[in-house]
Amino acid sequence: MKTLYASDGSLLHLPRGPYFSDGQRRVDYVLTYSIQKPSAVRRQSSKLSDNGFFHRLRRSLSSRSSRAPLQPKEDPEVAATEQQANYHEDDKRFKREEFEQNLQEMGLELEKDEGGKIAGIGFLKIHAPWAVLCREAEIMKLKMPTKQVYEVKQGSNLVEKIRLFIHKVTDPLHPKVGPKRPEDVKSLSLPFSKEKQHLFDLSDRDKFFDSKTRSSIVSISECLILIHGLFLLIGITSLLANGVYTSAYPLHDLLFEEWASYSVFYKYQPIGLIRKYFGEKVGLYFAWLGVYTQMLIPAAIVGVIVFLYGCATVDDNIPSMEICDPRNNITMCPLCDSACSYWKLETACGTARASHLFDNPATVFFSIFMALWAVLFMEHWKRRQMRLNYVWDLTDYGMEEEDHNRAEYELRVAEKTMRQDQGAAKVGLRLESVISDDSWLSLVCLPPSFQIFITFVIAFGVILYRISIKTALHLSTYPAARSNIRATVKTTAAIINVIVIIILDEIYASIARWLTTLEVPKTDKSFEERLIFKTFILKFVNAFTPIVYLAFFRGRLVGRPGKYLYVVGSYRMEECAHAGCLMELCIQLCITMLGKQLIQNNLFEIGIPKLKKLLRKRKSELTSKQEEELHKTLKRYEKDHVLGPFVGINPEYMEMIIQFGMVTLFVASFPLAPLFALLNNIIEIRLDAKKFVLELRRPIAAKVKDIGIWYNLLRGLSKVAVIVNAFVIAFTSDFVPRLVYQYTYSPDGTMHGFVNHTLSYFNVSDFQNGTEPNPPNFNVKVCRYKDYREPPWSNTPYELSKEFWAILAVRLAFVIVFQNMVMLMSDFVDWLIPDIPKDISFQIHKEKLLMLDHFMKEEGRRRDNHNHDGYTSPSSGSASPHSRPTFHARAGW
Amino acid sequence: MKTLYASDGSLLHLPRGPYFSDGQRRVDYVLTYSIQKPSAVRRQSSKLSDNGFFHRLRRSLSSRSSRAPLQPKEDPEVAATEQQANYHEDDKRFKREEFEQNLQEMGLELEKDEGGKIAGIGFLKIHAPWAVLCREAEIMKLKMPTKQVYEVKQGSNLVEKIRLFIHKVTDPLHPKVGPKRPEDVKSLSLPFSKEKQHLFDLSDRDKFFDSKTRSSIVSISECLILIHGLFLLIGITSLLANGVYTSAYPLHDLLFEEWASYSVFYKYQPIGLIRKYFGEKVGLYFAWLGVYTQMLIPAAIVGVIVFLYGCATVDDNIPSMEICDPRNNITMCPLCDSACSYWKLETACGTARASHLFDNPATVFFSIFMALWAVLFMEHWKRRQMRLNYVWDLTDYGMEEEDHNRAEYELRVAEKTMRQDQGAAKVGLRLESVISDDSWLSLVCLPPSFQIFITFVIAFGVILYRISIKTALHLSTYPAARSNIRATVKTTAAIINVIVIIILDEIYASIARWLTTLEVPKTDKSFEERLIFKTFILKFVNAFTPIVYLAFFRGRLVGRPGKYLYVVGSYRMEECAHAGCLMELCIQLCITMLGKQLIQNNLFEIGIPKLKKLLRKRKSELTSKQEEELHKTLKRYEKDHVLGPFVGINPEYMEMIIQFGMVTLFVASFPLAPLFALLNNIIEIRLDAKKFVLELRRPIAAKVKDIGIWYNLLRGLSKVAVIVNAFVIAFTSDFVPRLVYQYTYSPDGTMHGFVNHTLSYFNVSDFQNGTEPNPPNFNVKVCRYKDYREPPWSNTPYELSKEFWAILAVRLAFVIVFQNMVMLMSDFVDWLIPDIPKDISFQIHKEKLLMLDHFMKEEGRRRDNHNHDGYTSPSSGSASPHSRPTFHARAGW
Repeated sequence: MKTLYASDGSLLHLPRGPYFSDGQRRVDYVLTYSIQKPSAVRRQSSKLSDNGFFHRLRRSLSSRSSRAPLQPKEDPEVAATEQQANYHEDDKRFKREEFEQNLQEMGLELEKDEGGKIAGIGFLKIHAPWAVLCREAEIMKLKMPTKQVYEVKQGSNLVEKIRLFIHKVTDPLHPKVGPKRPEDVKSLSLPFSKEKQHLFDLSDRDKFFDSKTRSSIVSISECLILIHGLFLLIGITSLLANGVYTSAYPLHDLLFEEWASYSVFYKYQPIGLIRKYFGEKVGLYFAWLGVYTQMLIPAAIVGVIVFLYGCATVDDNIPSMEICDPRNNITMCPLCDSACSYWKLETACGTARASHLFDNPATVFFSIFMALWAVLFMEHWKRRQMRLNYVWDLTDYGMEEEDHNRAEYELRVAEKTMRQDQGAAKVGLRLESVISDDSWLSLVCLPPSFQIFITFVIAFGVILYRISIKTALHLSTYPAARSNIRATVKTTAAIINVIVIIILDEIYASIARWLTTLEVPKTDKSFEERLIFKTFILKFVNAFTPIVYLAFFRGRLVGRPGKYLYVVGSYRMEECAHAGCLMELCIQLCITMLGKQLIQNNLFEIGIPKLKKLLRKRKSELTSKQEEELHKTLKRYEKDHVLGPFVGINPEYMEMIIQFGMVTLFVASFPLAPLFALLNNIIEIRLDAKKFVLELRRPIAAKVKDIGIWYNLLRGLSKVAVIVNAFVIAFTSDFVPRLVYQYTYSPDGTMHGFVNHTLSYFNVSDFQNGTEPNPPNFNVKVCRYKDYREPPWSNTPYELSKEFWAILAVRLAFVIVFQNMVMLMSDFVDWLIPDIPKDISFQIHKEKLLMLDHFMKEEGRRRDNHNHDGYTSPSSGSASPHSRPTFHARAGW
Repeated sequence: MKTLYASDGSLLHLPRGPYFSDGQRRVDYVLTYSIQKPSAVRRQSSKLSDNGFFHRLRRSLSSRSSRAPLQPKEDPEVAATEQQANYHEDDKRFKREEFEQNLQEMGLELEKDEGGKIAGIGFLKIHAPWAVLCREAEIMKLKMPTKQVYEVKQGSNLVEKIRLFIHKVTDPLHPKVGPKRPEDVKSLSLPFSKEKQHLFDLSDRDKFFDSKTRSSIVSISECLILIHGLFLLIGITSLLANGVYTSAYPLHDLLFEEWASYSVFYKYQPIGLIRKYFGEKVGLYFAWLGVYTQMLIPAAIVGVIVFLYGCATVDDNIPSMEICDPRNNITMCPLCDSACSYWKLETACGTARASHLFDNPATVFFSIFMALWAVLFMEHWKRRQMRLNYVWDLTDYGMEEEDHNRAEYELRVAEKTMRQDQGAAKVGLRLESVISDDSWLSLVCLPPSFQIFITFVIAFGVILYRISIKTALHLSTYPAARSNIRATVKTTAAIINVIVIIILDEIYASIARWLTTLEVPKTDKSFEERLIFKTFILKFVNAFTPIVYLAFFRGRLVGRPGKYLYVVGSYRMEECAHAGCLMELCIQLCITMLGKQLIQNNLFEIGIPKLKKLLRKRKSELTSKQEEELHKTLKRYEKDHVLGPFVGINPEYMEMIIQFGMVTLFVASFPLAPLFALLNNIIEIRLDAKKFVLELRRPIAAKVKDIGIWYNLLRGLSKVAVIVNAFVIAFTSDFVPRLVYQYTYSPDGTMHGFVNHTLSYFNVSDFQNGTEPNPPNFNVKVCRYKDYREPPWSNTPYELSKEFWAILAVRLAFVIVFQNMVMLMSDFVDWLIPDIPKDISFQIHKEKLLMLDHFMKEEGRRRDNHNHDGYTSPSSGSASPHSRPTFHARAGW
């Protein structure tokens, strides 16, 4: 028993958290507030007086028993600044005093520190004594490990051997955190109860509840406070939002050498410790990120192989050989009106060869592979999550998970009720207000589509920019500029795209938040889900509009020589280079992924926090050396106050989901995407870790069972990915035309003649006035263009040819076959892999039986002790549970 | 409290079950066995002696605590007859005695009756006394209603009012069963425990555990018995399988006037009572059937409207008008070689008009409607199931649901082990046996695909039959026969199809069972699931092969005049009537649905049981009057013995699932399918009810939480339905060609000229030798046929034309758009409707809190009583759960 407790209590050898001034009581939670009148500061480090009965303290068990402690949903400091005008300073102090008295009535112990090194900030340190912890743990039904351990049987013999072998081989990859936990035993966890204290290992009371649990117990304190003449049940979050306190945080107490460091990038993460420190929500995020990164390894390897296959076969590729062959001497029609001239097909040789890298049969295989990969990833995650649920004793948690009404919502309802009550006589006015309220709310429902529209408008602007820049460059007479046209335009446009995307991302995040706030969702959970959903839609559209445009629209609606399509005055629709848009799509994806990751990682995740810190330092007007000196003398809670506030892990998820979209949605056109994602994620994990450990205040531990809406978004993305990939292969790549040519039109069953087959004829005399090349080239009578149209000498010149329709039919058939085949395979894989690992479902069952057995023994012991108390049934005796053989007999442990 | 108990204990006014000869002890379960030597019968109606210690009694809590009692998986009598040779009669008697002694050791009370009215059959009546029931209920953790009731809050005010209104309006539709249960209170259910007897309303001990519970408690008795020199844990099922007992059943004790009668077809079913009587498994089946039937009502109404729309617009339909117009005078090419002659298009007038009934734009709407309907049905069922789970106190049940190893599996493993142990020296022999065993098992894995192959072969045979009959009729010279050709062939072929399907259905059921038995699945659950899956695949392919052939293959691969496709010698592939195969598909579906239902319902579900009864009567060689007289004097357990054994509800589910397939898969071609299904189901419910109540022995109650694999099959079907309907609309109906014609080829934007557009030209001089009509018609130079091909005068005569490819592309595009749109909408609906009704999730949460509160109070009371026992923690007192305000304060009930 001893060993076990020590083994998972890896806090043992780590520095313990800081204490009250008596050096005895641990600081479990810190609230800060601004002191406006420094002259009136009273040093109050002694315990506050213990009386104060006028204030109602009503604490709701129903809402607290199981609810996960709240994460501050937005930067509390920002919110505080915004709303600071709401209350007068005195009012705030009054509220603080009221709240503090409530806390004391609840049994919490407080210590104030208003004269610290950081001027203008008061600290309220909170300590939860043993009695309070016990009571709250009991009310929250916290499952705590008991002294009773049981053996964890790991599958069958062979499976177990393989597992052990793998574990041995990967040993250097496992993080070295504390004494090794014996993996074959697990202690039985039971909801904590004071009655049953003897079951738990209370040898060290200070360590029994870890710091995460202690702070989350304190953080959910609530009390009734008078606001706007109404008593509202107010928690710390609301007080923060109202500026009564400026920030609230538990203290950091340990660091992860084995996690938050780039030097251990190849290792598994110490998920157990992360959860122990940050709570289940953050733990699950890192576990998910770990699984995702791990799963990216095979995807990246296959992607690289597919890419290498493309490289290896580029010289055997008949279409590009034909394009590059100068003997073919094919004259192509000009790509723009008057300014452009005829050109020779062999100049497109480079692009054609490059296109082959991403447009070969292996790509089709790779998209199927990635669709199945996505399903496998999801299944793997479900199983991992279930395993973590078991290890973290969350299997019972869930049904009782209850939503907590948002303070903002309650405030609004209260205001409305009050208004209605006051205006009971003025019915007309009341009705009016209700109507106006509702219509205002219904107005709010419109914007999302409006914003998607805005996104499209902006994306369209980017398209227009590209067209105009291109035309301008075409018009320039310098030949050097001309030859560099494509490369320059493509690169600048893509980079501008990325920058626009990143800037818009930030704007959209704010818009989504603003919109969701307007909606006043009832509960915290619904607020979070709506916010995530809105943000996701906006960011997704933002990130993928240019890519979708490139993949499916660019070069589709150009018309034909002599009858081009014009938009907005006289802009011709953009065309792709000869070898299809796939190449450009590929460049765009590459730059978006690299750029987004580089800029976001470096600028936003490292740069901006550094900048913020710098600005804070500036404010305090101290030289860096003095600063450093001061920092050393600062107490833990003062140090943590300097850190940035924790704003939740949703932005991290969002970033990863968008990346997942990049990896799966257009994988048919860019097989290196998984590799890029993998490289990014290896850094990302440690970056996030560093950020959470060093840059941000410690969050309050939140208990969740799964990753919630993110899982649904992942599922949705992987479903969309199948159809998008089907369309990319069918329409963006030349896969289907090649196939059709080879098996129907080719005279000898090879690809020879394919290029000629894809080019239609155009009689230069059919140019519309003013669109013919200037200066004209009188040697050219007929030029070629890439399309399937009737030649000028047919009955219906320039009409779409039979080949066009046949190939279109095959393209569409390919989409249907691909989509349904991949969906069927995905469903099959989904059905094949059980959601709950067999050994885990076995363990869960075993644990239940063990618990039953335990309770029965308990019951029996109690009855034996008090056989006089009349509880025993008249029929007990021969048929009592004790006389029957215990179930150990069969279960065999 | 009293009222509540009385209210759901509607047994009160119903006849009670029969008793032991003392008139006191209730018969909870009956086992029968055959008496081979009637001379040796000892009348043994007294209680058997209470000793007998040599036999090991080992009862496993782990497998019994939560497992649902087993349903006999096959007709036990049949199994018994088959295996009767396994054991010598003495051996069986010995085993019986051993088993009976075990039962007595467990505390059960037995009574034997070997000299009853039914000769050769001995009855063993089992009574479970209070002490045994209590003990087993505690071990099984049966949730029983306590005295404590709580108010069930029903949603918000408005919702509640609507609910009440609907309830009032539909009052005559609700079955009148017993005293009305007050719906706004529910008693809190807790796992039964002898310690806490005072919580439960034990005023009438005989009624506390209902007959279903009592019999299921008895039915799971297990004991160790020596078989093949090995001790095996053997339950009643195994003893039945080995012929030690011939049958096992609980007794019927009440009848449902308000359910098992056709006169109440319009009423809701008394699901609560059904569950109380038959257990959760049967209850869920009828609840599911009810929901399905209810959901069919709107589908049938919309289907009829769509059909009526077709009827109303048939005269405005330009294509059929054009076909019927004799002025067009279109000469069609002959439909068969030499025997057939040219024909005039206007002779196809009737078919064309009839086709319009099922092939109009409303059909497209209807398929989309039905796809969404299927999703709604599934969602509705999920919610209903959750609601039933709540009402039936199954919300906690599930995780602990454990599989029970099948006796056959254990026997086989034991045999194998034994063989290995015995032959430890003869390694070669042992290896050989192992190999042969495994290879035998691996052989078993092949057949499923083989059987699907057989099904296809048979279906192909049907196709060949149809072709040959048709050709034969064509060849006949009687003009009268010729004119009736189509109708005759279609009808006879469809009827033969139906009969073949029904016969094969029965054969396939046996094959599936045989195959699954060969596989020796480890557990009962896996056995059941594999069996269901196999049976489903076979029956599904069997039922749908002819329909799929009609919808997608018939008339597709006929070739063209002058170059027909021939199969198997000189059979030409079948063609459809002019207006497409949709009409024939429709007739086929109609006959299949009607025929299958009529024959299966009447013949199999009513006829065969009657026949069996008749045969049994014949055997007993009594006149019907004597028989009747005897029947009256028979005791309940003797009466029940005459009834057929209960073989599970899977056949009922299977029938309904196949019907669901008919309703959803080809709904695009037959909008009346939901109506037919509805009419059938209204009868089906009462038929099944009658069968279960009157014709079959009462089953042992089985506890399940959901409908298991059937739900997955339903989901799979509704997914397949989307794509099948998309293909039916795109390829089988003329919807897409009409659309394309109207919007691209039509000179005036109307349908005029459509018929001409769909017909290609054929030069009669191009007929191959011997295929031209005989006698030849020299007036015809060019005939027409339905296809999109180049005319004889083009450069590429008889090649597929550009129109063909264009229309094919549009057809395929339609499939993609339809499939993805419907899937998106389905997913959206799925996402929109929460799986757990809001009020139920609220109630479940409330119940949990109530239970917690209850336990806390209990705990407190106990502590108050025994404050000296040292359990109170040192820190209790000021912070004990009693000093804090109860959570009632906030939750507000």
